[in-house]
Order: sequence, then C-alpha cells, then structure tokens
Amino acid sequence: MVVLAGGFGGAKLSHGVALASAARTAAGQAPLDLTVVVNTGDDLELHGLSVSPDLDTVMYTLAGLANDETGWGIRDETWSSSAMLERYGAETWFGLGDRDMATHVRRTQLRRSGLSLTEVTAELAGRLDVPARLLPMTDGRVRTEIRTSAGWLEFQEYFVKRGQVDEVLEIRRRGIDDARPTSEVLRAVAAAQLIVIAPSNPFVSVGTILALPGMLDALLEATAPIEAVSPVVGGAALRGPADKMLRSLGGTASAAGVVAHYREHYAGLVDTFVLDEIDAAEVPALEATGVHIRLLPTVMRSHDDRCDLAQAILAAHLSD
Amino acid sequence: MVVLAGGFGGAKLSHGVALASAARTAAGQAPLDLTVVVNTGDDLELHGLSVSPDLDTVMYTLAGLANDETGWGIRDETWSSSAMLERYGAETWFGLGDRDMATHVRRTQLRRSGLSLTEVTAELAGRLDVPARLLPMTDGRVRTEIRTSAGWLEFQEYFVKRGQVDEVLEIRRRGIDDARPTSEVLRAVAAAQLIVIAPSNPFVSVGTILALPGMLDALLEATAPIEAVSPVVGGAALRGPADKMLRSLGGTASAAGVVAHYREHYAGLVDTFVLDEIDAAEVPALEATGVHIRLLPTVMRSHDDRCDLAQAILAAHLSD
Repeated sequence: MVVLAGGFGGAKLSHGVALASAARTAAGQAPLDLTVVVNTGDDLELHGLSVSPDLDTVMYTLAGLANDETGWGIRDETWSSSAMLERYGAETWFGLGDRDMATHVRRTQLRRSGLSLTEVTAELAGRLDVPARLLPMTDGRVRTEIRTSAGWLEFQEYFVKRGQVDEVLEIRRRGIDDARPTSEVLRAVAAAQLIVIAPSNPFVSVGTILALPGMLDALLEATAPIEAVSPVVGGAALRGPADKMLRSLGGTASAAGVVAHYREHYAGLVDTFVLDEIDAAEVPALEATGVHIRLLPTVMRSHDDRCDLAQAILAAHLSD
Repeated sequence: MVVLAGGFGGAKLSHGVALASAARTAAGQAPLDLTVVVNTGDDLELHGLSVSPDLDTVMYTLAGLANDETGWGIRDETWSSSAMLERYGAETWFGLGDRDMATHVRRTQLRRSGLSLTEVTAELAGRLDVPARLLPMTDGRVRTEIRTSAGWLEFQEYFVKRGQVDEVLEIRRRGIDDARPTSEVLRAVAAAQLIVIAPSNPFVSVGTILALPGMLDALLEATAPIEAVSPVVGGAALRGPADKMLRSLGGTASAAGVVAHYREHYAGLVDTFVLDEIDAAEVPALEATGVHIRLLPTVMRSHDDRCDLAQAILAAHLSD
C-alpha cells in the first residue's frame, strides 16, 4: 500500500494504516506493507540546517512522538535552543523544539556526508522504529512558492511566518523541472496494490508530488486502484488553507470542489473519492457524472479514528 | 589588558577582571579594557557542527550564563536534543545541552556564510553582552592531539571521552605550522599594558597559543609586563590534567614545576609568576634563581574570589 502524503492529514492516515496493520498482526493476519511518499516542496533551510516539515510530521506521527495538539513537532518538547538562537539574533518564526532540532542537525550532518535525502530519511525513521517505509518524493530540490498581493513568497514564509493570511494567486515549484521521483518511489507505485491520496492539500502537498516529471504517468500506469480522501469536509479544510486555495485558484471550497479539481487537472487518476459522511448531499450529483464515491467518517480526531478510517478504506481491497 | 586563556581557569580570571572593571566603573574610575585570547586547539566537529569548547566556556562565563558547578556548558541547561541525537545513533559522549547546541548551530551557520571564527566570536559574544573582547588565537585550524599508550588521540577523545585517564606521552598540534595568530590578536598583544597568562593548562591551553608561529615573538616584543598565574596549587592542578602532564612530560607537579616549565621552554617570557599562598615554601628557592614571584590567594571558588584575584594582579599595574 502506498500513501501520497503532505503533513498532518497524510501523517494521520498513514498512522491509521500502521495501527490497522498492528491490529491485523495481533489477530494473526498478515501485516500491511506501507510506503508513504511525502511532499518535500515545503522543505527549507533554517539556521543552516535542512528542515523537511512534511517528512518530519509523518515520521514523528508514525513513531508515536508527534504533538497531536499542534499537528507539528514533538510531544513534551522543550524550547531552550530556540530561545538561545533568538538571543543570537536568529529568526525564530519557524518553531523548532530541542528534540526536533536534533532531527535537523542529524539530517544535515548525514546529508553533508553524502547520503541522499531518501537514505537519510530511511536512517532516521529506522532509528525511531517507524513501522512504514518513508520516501521523500524526490532527492532533488523542489521549493514551493506562493504568489500573493505581497509578491512571491517562499512556502513557509506564506504558511508559517505570515500565517496563511494572504490570498493565494498562483503557485510555482522551483526546481521541479529538474527533479524526478526517486527510483524507490517509482518502484513502490508500480508494485502497489492500493494507492491512497491522503487528505492533504491538493495544491501544495499532493499537487507538488504530482507535478514531479514522470510522477503522474507512473500513477496512471500503476495497476493499483487509486483512492483520494478529500481534505475538505463540510465546506472547510480540516486544517490549513486548502479551502481558501480552492476558492482563490478558481475552484469551489467543498468536497465536490476537491473532486472537480482532481478530475480537471489529473484526468483518469483517481478511481474512488472518499468523502466524509457529512457531505452525503453532494454525492448524487457527483455520481451522476460517473464519479465513484465512498462515504466514510474521515475526520480523524483520535487514534481510533485513524485506524477506523484506514480499515474502512482497506476493507474493500483486502482479500483475507 | 590581555589574558591568554584556555577553558575554565582562564574564564574565571577573565570574569574577575570584568567584575573588577565593573567595580571601578561603579566607583567612578575608568573601566578596564579586556581582551581574552583563547585557545582553539581543543575545537572539534560534533554532529557536523563547529564546537569551540574554550571559547564557549569563556563566553558563557563572561556572559554570566556558565554552569559554575561543572566548569563547562550553560546553567539550568536542558538536554532534549542530545537525548534525541542518541536515539538517532549519534555519539553523545561530548555533552551538548540545548542552549549550548544553539551556539554551535549558529556558529556553524555563520562560519558557512563566510565569516571568520574571529568575526563569528565577536557576533556571538556581542549578542550575549560579553563585557570583553573575545579573540580566538587564530582563524586557522589547529587540532591538539595526545599520544598515549593507546596511540594518538584527538584532544577531546583523550579529555572527555576517555576522561583523562591515559598517561600523556607527547602532544602535537595538527595544522599549527600553517596557522597564524590573527591580526587582532597581534594588535591586542602589542597594545596591551598588562598581559596575564591565566591559570590554564601550560601544555594544551597556553602551550597551544604559544606554539602558533609568531606568537611567542609577539609576546616577547610586547612592552607590557607578562604575569603567569600557576594552575598548580599545593602540588595539584585545580582542575584537569596539568599536574599529571607535568609529571609524564618530564617536569614536576608543583608551582615550582610550572615556573620551571615556562622558564625552560619560553625563556624571558614571564616577568612575574603568581603563585598561591599555600605554596609559600617554594618561593625562596625560586627567588634565589632570580624569578620574580607574587603570592596571592589564587583559588577562585566564588565570584568574589575571581574579582579579588584580578584586583590583586591589577593593583601593581594601575596608576589610578
């Protein structure tokens, strides 16, 4: 099973799959083989360190270390290094806790020693006993940028520093033309029996993965069915600016708007859309246009919710 | 006034000078102009970060942040990043607290941006309101190494990792032939009205500063009197392995042994030796050989002790 993921939405669904796999193992069934392909367009350099926010959110969540309250960073974190960096005059608008800092220090050290981001990610995730294979979408350098009335902003400047208040007029991904999905990603997609597009932002998370040259073709050629979970529930994004982006970039801030976005820009990609039960009223019109819909409780408030959603998605695809 | 310093001994004496200067200012007298020239032969790379233990000890001490219990690191430190680095499989025998980590992250970032160690040190110390000028002895790369029965060890491997248990058979300083004292150091030495060799290790702290090509000549040419404070009191080093090194490298572990070491290896360098009052019995024999000695309480247990020692050393040299 392959999940295409951005940050917290992808992390929670992936965690649900891991929990479902553990439940299967406990029941004497075969465990699930999970690969998570993660957006790296939000990556940045901070204090000279390589920071990969989406990879970290997925890694910490799957390792059971995540701060579920905030959706980023590590639980029971301390903030001494950040306070000291502030005394040194460094910009500290991007919150880096002390444990989190260690991740970036270690990643930077291993990257400088010559390892690829794929290799470093495997090393870090392995040390944290992450029960899945974490793959950055690419070993190349892709940087998402957002055009607003204030001009082009680096993604985290828009997202964290300015708190997503700017209207998004355009999105571009620097370096995307020279980047490629890794061979590990392409092999995982080709070998998958089920591919799930997580309830992540269709533009800046999933959209960046899909914008990698060769990625869309690889997914279209994959034999696995592809299911996409809507990140918009009841007309609003569960988290982040996906709903605002749907509006400002010419779509509709609704589950149907998410479906329309994928169908318009990635024809033939998604076999089944998973929408939340609260959006049941949108289903008949969608089904009338030939879209295959599955209604499920998609809001993952608890760890049980994560497991339940994963099991419900998997139920239609598992033979045993 | 210029102090040549290693770690904690040099830090405490420099702090004493800063306290004495503050007392002078409070009494309406002119403040003292203090420059501390610090050994960088103990520097190392940890987790891909540039660590300068002696510079940091002096900086933290003068900034009022030091952990006086341990003699290294920052007071009220937290250790989250180190614990996480350990989970990632990194070697953590060299203790780096979270606040301390920020120093190394920032130093590394500024160094990589193209600043010299001298410039970076000025920036960091300035941000921490250090009431003195901190100068690394060189902007070159010097690494002290220790020969033991286990072979050559990097300094911190000998000092921290193996806890100074090995007998020191020989000392070498990699890179020393290509390193030079900075122009800032040479100017400070030439302009000084008093130069104090701190009660730091004569071999691996002061000895490394003095081994820089051109450094000894600059000191011999300086017009300022040079006073050396013995780090050996009552036959033992107050801290660290100076006494053991005196024994294993052919000297005597006593205040007289320190005097003999400087006289033998750096003829004409030291004008006055400051020994502790407890070593009064050694004075007549030394004075009989023409050495100028001053007996003072040199053991700095409290901040008042630091100030008192600095004031006592300065008393002979200040006109107002």
